[in-house]
Amino acid sequence: MNFVKGSCEDFVTVLASKAPIPGGGGASALVGAIGAALGNMVASLTVGKKKYADVEEQMYLLKDKTENLQRELLELVGRDAEVFEPLSKAYGMPKNTEDEIAEKDKVMEHALKEACSVPLEIMKKCCEAIELHREYAEKGSALAVSDAGVGVVFCKAALQGASLNVFINTKAMKEKEYADKINIEAKTLLTQYEKMADEIYSDVLAKLVKE
Amino acid sequence: MNFVKGSCEDFVTVLASKAPIPGGGGASALVGAIGAALGNMVASLTVGKKKYADVEEQMYLLKDKTENLQRELLELVGRDAEVFEPLSKAYGMPKNTEDEIAEKDKVMEHALKEACSVPLEIMKKCCEAIELHREYAEKGSALAVSDAGVGVVFCKAALQGASLNVFINTKAMKEKEYADKINIEAKTLLTQYEKMADEIYSDVLAKLVKE
Repeated sequence: MNFVKGSCEDFVTVLASKAPIPGGGGASALVGAIGAALGNMVASLTVGKKKYADVEEQMYLLKDKTENLQRELLELVGRDAEVFEPLSKAYGMPKNTEDEIAEKDKVMEHALKEACSVPLEIMKKCCEAIELHREYAEKGSALAVSDAGVGVVFCKAALQGASLNVFINTKAMKEKEYADKINIEAKTLLTQYEKMADEIYSDVLAKLVKE
Repeated sequence: MNFVKGSCEDFVTVLASKAPIPGGGGASALVGAIGAALGNMVASLTVGKKKYADVEEQMYLLKDKTENLQRELLELVGRDAEVFEPLSKAYGMPKNTEDEIAEKDKVMEHALKEACSVPLEIMKKCCEAIELHREYAEKGSALAVSDAGVGVVFCKAALQGASLNVFINTKAMKEKEYADKINIEAKTLLTQYEKMADEIYSDVLAKLVKE
């Protein structure tokens, strides 16, 4: 399930098909990785420049963190497929007898929990990437400021995209207490980091264009 | 410059480097293509289902349009690189004599116009994709509603990302009248389609989770 080793074109084509994987969760992880990579690009274009010598050390530290996030988000593309495939099979289980219904319920509940865990992880990584973009937008090379802006909107979109993949799974859970706990965690991340991302994007936009 | 034939992993890695291409414009085209593909996926999961027989014909029409957008956006990844590379070279031209300055100004102005045209085209394609997502979110299979939501946030992010690549280029233009005309066009698209995308996303979110 190593979709990221395949071509971008193939990823898009298989995504568009009715094949269960990759799905919206995996696509969110990829868009998050692209968003993080744009931050990494800002760092790459800032280090080694006289004008930005003051922030060079910090840029190298940020670059390391961003590189990790970028790699982790690419790994999450595959992990999302690994947890989504069993869920997609569980949806197809028969429910003709009471025993079958009970078995399906059990398998589904487990598969739903697994299928929530990865998008929630993607959300957390995107939040970390948004925080790094704040630094890139403020301190990175002015020539690359648009890239910090593009990066942050992608990380926000990936955060929101992953959240929908959490919510569609918690909605189907029977254990409402567990589902509520996950939903609260996801909503808390959304509230805090959508706002932060919007602020960073507005700051970048204000640098590039007059209202 | 056929980045989309290369692996997703390589795209992310080269994007993160200081290589001038791919840049934020090409990344926006790819994210737009991923967003469109998610709409296409909704169509793929809706057609052939008894429950959605009423919308089947419409879904096939939408699917055709979405497939075109998906292909065009993938092509725009390469086209963005083609117009950005000359601009990146123009930035490096010498400006020691009056003749050199005049020559650089001329080459820059042309390269800036070219480098604006592709992200503006990406914006337009993303707007079309957002309109299609409205249909997918309303009429597509309920099992895939989260994918319509993810798709629309990606198309919105790609629209915004591409706009920053328009604005960073118009900002550097000497012909202010031309720059203003392009900026107005970009801002008009942003105003209309950011709002539409937000509404579609909110509708999807409301179907999946209670406030």
